Formats: sequence, C-alpha cells, structure tokens
Amino acid sequence: MKRVLTSLSVALAAGLATWGAVHAADSEPIQPIRAPQNINLGMVELGKKLYFDPRLSKSGFISCNSCHNLSMGGTDNIPTSIGDHWQQGPINAPTVLNASLNLAQFWDGRAADLKEQAGGPIANPGEMAFTHTLALNVLSSIPGYTREFRQVFGKDKIDIEQVTLAIAEFEKTLVTPNSRFDLWLLGKKDALTPTELAGYELFKTSGCVACHNGEAVGGNSFQKMGLIEPYKARSKAEGRSAVTGKDSDRFNFKVPTLRNVELTYPYFHDGAANTLSEAVDVMGRLQLGRKFSPDENAKIVAFLKTLTGDQPTFTLPILPPSADSTPRPTPFAAH
Amino acid sequence: MKRVLTSLSVALAAGLATWGAVHAADSEPIQPIRAPQNINLGMVELGKKLYFDPRLSKSGFISCNSCHNLSMGGTDNIPTSIGDHWQQGPINAPTVLNASLNLAQFWDGRAADLKEQAGGPIANPGEMAFTHTLALNVLSSIPGYTREFRQVFGKDKIDIEQVTLAIAEFEKTLVTPNSRFDLWLLGKKDALTPTELAGYELFKTSGCVACHNGEAVGGNSFQKMGLIEPYKARSKAEGRSAVTGKDSDRFNFKVPTLRNVELTYPYFHDGAANTLSEAVDVMGRLQLGRKFSPDENAKIVAFLKTLTGDQPTFTLPILPPSADSTPRPTPFAAH
Repeated sequence: MKRVLTSLSVALAAGLATWGAVHAADSEPIQPIRAPQNINLGMVELGKKLYFDPRLSKSGFISCNSCHNLSMGGTDNIPTSIGDHWQQGPINAPTVLNASLNLAQFWDGRAADLKEQAGGPIANPGEMAFTHTLALNVLSSIPGYTREFRQVFGKDKIDIEQVTLAIAEFEKTLVTPNSRFDLWLLGKKDALTPTELAGYELFKTSGCVACHNGEAVGGNSFQKMGLIEPYKARSKAEGRSAVTGKDSDRFNFKVPTLRNVELTYPYFHDGAANTLSEAVDVMGRLQLGRKFSPDENAKIVAFLKTLTGDQPTFTLPILPPSADSTPRPTPFAAH
Repeated sequence: MKRVLTSLSVALAAGLATWGAVHAADSEPIQPIRAPQNINLGMVELGKKLYFDPRLSKSGFISCNSCHNLSMGGTDNIPTSIGDHWQQGPINAPTVLNASLNLAQFWDGRAADLKEQAGGPIANPGEMAFTHTLALNVLSSIPGYTREFRQVFGKDKIDIEQVTLAIAEFEKTLVTPNSRFDLWLLGKKDALTPTELAGYELFKTSGCVACHNGEAVGGNSFQKMGLIEPYKARSKAEGRSAVTGKDSDRFNFKVPTLRNVELTYPYFHDGAANTLSEAVDVMGRLQLGRKFSPDENAKIVAFLKTLTGDQPTFTLPILPPSADSTPRPTPFAAH
C-alpha cells in the first residue's frame, strides 16, 4: 500500500500519465484510474464530515465509515456487516473505493449512482435504522452544519438531496490511482515482476477479463454468480431479479471491482471466501469451468495484488458539536 | 473548534506561551495545556494504527476510536457505550483528549496510566470482548504490523506491553492546546468576552474550581458525586470503592476534565446530563449547595465553552491488510 506522501509523487504520476498513455494502456482491456474531474471541494469537505458522522444513525454509533472503513480498503473486512442492535446484514459491504466507476450501486444495482446509494443505509432498519426526516432534524439543529450547508448549497434549509449529494461528492474523490499495475499500463515496464505479468496473461487468456475489465477491473456489468456450476451462497440475496422482477436475472450480481482487492477480503456477495487464493479457485471453477493449478492460482493472485493503488489520504474530520436542542441518539431503545 | 491549520499558528501559540506565561497563568488555579514532551514518533504512528484497528476486537468492528471518537471530542456522545453484540456499557466513556493529564485512568482510577488502561477494553467481555492472546495472534500474523513493531521496539515478538505502550504513546499526543481560555491565561486579554470572564469569576468564587483546576481543569482528584445532596445515578457504578474496598470511597469518582467539555456531552459518569446548562445546575446544587440563577448558569456555560482547544489533527491511518493466515473476526458467533 502506497500513499501520496509528497506533491512530488503526484507530479510524477501526472507525468507518467501523459507520457505513457498512448504507449500501452489503449491496447489493454484494463485502463488506468484517472483523477476525479469537476470536483466541488466545499461539497467534498462537507460530505467527508457526513461520511464520518454517526449521528446519521438512530444509535449515534454507526457512520458510513463503520462499514465502508477508509482505513481498511473502504470495507469492514467481515462477511456481512453489523447494523443497528448488532443485526447481521444480508450481504457483504462492497468497497466504496472507486465506486464512482460502477455502472450502478449495491450488488443488485438498485441505486443508479452514489447519490441515490447514500440515502439507503441511513433509512435501512437493519443498518443505520434512522429516517431521512430524523437525520435532517439532527443536522438542522447543529449550527456548524447549518452554516456549512448554507455555504456549499446557498440555501437556508437542509434537505436529503444536499446530504446525499455531499456524501457522493466526497465518495467521488475516493479513487486509488498509481497501483503498480497502472504504472505498468502507463509504460513503466519494470513495475511488475515476471510472475505478476504471467498472472496477468493468465487472467486474460483464461477469461477472467471478460467480466473484470475497464478502469475498475469490474463494476461495469451484471453477471450470473455460478455460471458453469451453481454457487451455494450463504446469503439469501437473489441479486438483480429483485430489481428487474425477471426470473432470468436471479443470482445476477454486479461484478465487483478488483481494484484494491488485496484489502477488500472476504470475497463474494456473501463474503464466504476468506482469501484471494480461494476466490480465484472458486471463480475459475464456477464461472470459467477451469481448475487453476496451484502455480496458476498463485500467479493470478500475485497479479491481483498489483491492483492496490494509493489509498485516499486526508485529515480525520472534526465534527461540529450537537447543540442543546439536537435530538439525542437512542442506541438502546427498542427497535 | 479551531485546529492547527498552519505552522504559523503553532509558532504564534509558542510565542504567546513564552511571552505571557509569567504574566497571568501562574496566579490562576488553571494552567494552560503544554505540548507533550519526549514523544517517540515511530511509536505514535504505530499506536495510531492500533487505536483505529477494529481487529483488536472479537467482532472486527470495534476499535478504540469507536467509543473514544477523535472526530467527536474523544468520546462517543452517548450516555453509555455500545460493546460487543450491542451490550450496554455500565458507565459513560470518558474523553481520551488530555487523558495523559489524569492522575489515573477510568472513572474509578483502577488503571495507573494510559498504558495500563489501553489493555482493559480489548479484553473486557462487554466491550471489545477479545483476549490479549487472541489480539496478539491477529497482530503477529499481519506482515505490515510485524515489520512496524520490529522497527519501533527492536524485538521479533509482539507482546501486549508493546501494544499498550504504542497506544498510550499515541494518546499522549492527544492534547488540545490554544483554547481561547489558554490564550487569555497566556496574556491575550481580549481572548475572552466580558460574559465569559464573568463566568470564570463565578466558577472560581462559587467553588467549582476547588475540584476543577490544574492543567486539565479536573482529572487530578477523586471526589464524592453527591456531596451536599445525594445523586440518583442511572449507573450502578460505585466508583473508587471498587478499587480500594473502602466503604468511605463509595460514589467517589475521578473528577472529569472540563477541557473540550462543549464536545464531550452527555455529562457525568452515567451520562445523564444532556446539556452543559443541566450539568452546571446539578453540580451547583449537589456539590456546592448553590442554586445558580439562569444568568449565572449561562455565564458559567459561556466560560466552559472557552475551554475547547485545538483538536488533534492527523491523517486517517491506513491499516496493514490481514494475511491469509490471520484469524478472522467472529462478529456473530455466540458470546
């Protein structure tokens, strides 16, 4: 895991992007991560606070960052998440890193974009267990927030549109450029070892790349989990059919990004695979009808670990304090 | 809430410290916060990671920062904390900010120092619900940690001493200098308004300062909660007697720091007071036998809000990923 430590390394990466882009990236099925465009920095700072604020939950204990933890690859690294009153979530929390590159949000794609997604967990009784109205009551009572919302949106009243827009704007900044693989794509030929390169070749020739491609190495299509052999899921989630109502969409899930996959264990929508080696083995058998040898498996895993990019680097936000009139969280009330 | 934004403001504060120290601070019962001394920066960086790492809990979900949240005044802002399996804690989580200035740790002072304290919640079945042995198994399996522990401590084996030392070292940096009150103490006479100054006068003349004094404005003695009138606590905790075994120590608790008290609501060891106004009223009646008028109460509250200092400013740590061999958290196993 590398981080942007100096402006020098940023400049270096920008330089590489210009220099190498025409050489390699265009002919490969995976593209390097680009810096986010047209970002509203005021909105990002506000969204960052909201992302870390557990007062958007009924308990006052769960924030976006609880399950999409930016210290841990934007996930919680447990099979399914813990919600209000320690409820067990139905599905693995997908990483928020590079989520802006997904064709839609949630495993079943039921939210069109990050803004629509952001409203979901707040009001989900099994997650943050709040309501949008109650969350807005809390935010509107906090002078530090009313000031900042007014500054960013130019309106007197906070609404849920503003809240989810700001969270989404922050999330758009959570991309992870400069992975070793991207440096290789951009022309730095010694960025990968021969083993990693052999893994990438296998990844392409064995068919993984058919679904895991593009800038996010996934995230751009829905595919059936268990194509050649059925998958015995621990989760009851049926995927895309819950959105489309079509029986043919049963067990179709959004293909997860493989960016930072070294950090986003455990794997699959039910979090059943603890290791990359296990995940590669299952994917090979169930999706491609191919049993990878231990050597092939190790090479693909080595390649996958080159997809870890610069993790988002920012100062932990300090949240504006509640006022006397702010409704207090009710962590132990019946639910 | 101000933050150290530039090195200029640090230099300014340092300048003030030199210039004003002999003028005012020495004759007052409250002293300005000083910068921490003799800090081992490598240990701080390691301790910061451990402080944010939920893998020190059985569930993989609860870190030190969950209940001593550095985005929220080093507390969780709920009456009593949420532990493993959503257990309700017996007592309000005290702020970690300036905790290094306390004469002992926990409300009943059962830990001599920060290092001793840090081991408590990890192994408390109602909090992080882990054991030191299991936590060490996790840390020792993570290459990023074994490397960093070796670098910092020069030993091959991670032990609980090192873990708690590193967390304590990070916590020593969590002081909050440059509150408006400290600037006033250091000679900047227009740092406080007349109302705030009147509040400070009342704070001294009515006797609050008898217990809330020194650098932390508290934290340096144990006192009986309910001295003049008994306190009807929501918590069953009996305080200092649990440590000394003496009946005369029943309901003696460590006097909490009033530094950043604007951020550390709700108040008292049972978290029963939601607002500063309520806390000042109860303290006046139960500890001093004095009913503050609304005007007096407002003045004291105005003074208390000048005790909010620079909040610790640092980059959110990125945690080293688990290895294939790392024991996985068990958030939903029976407990």
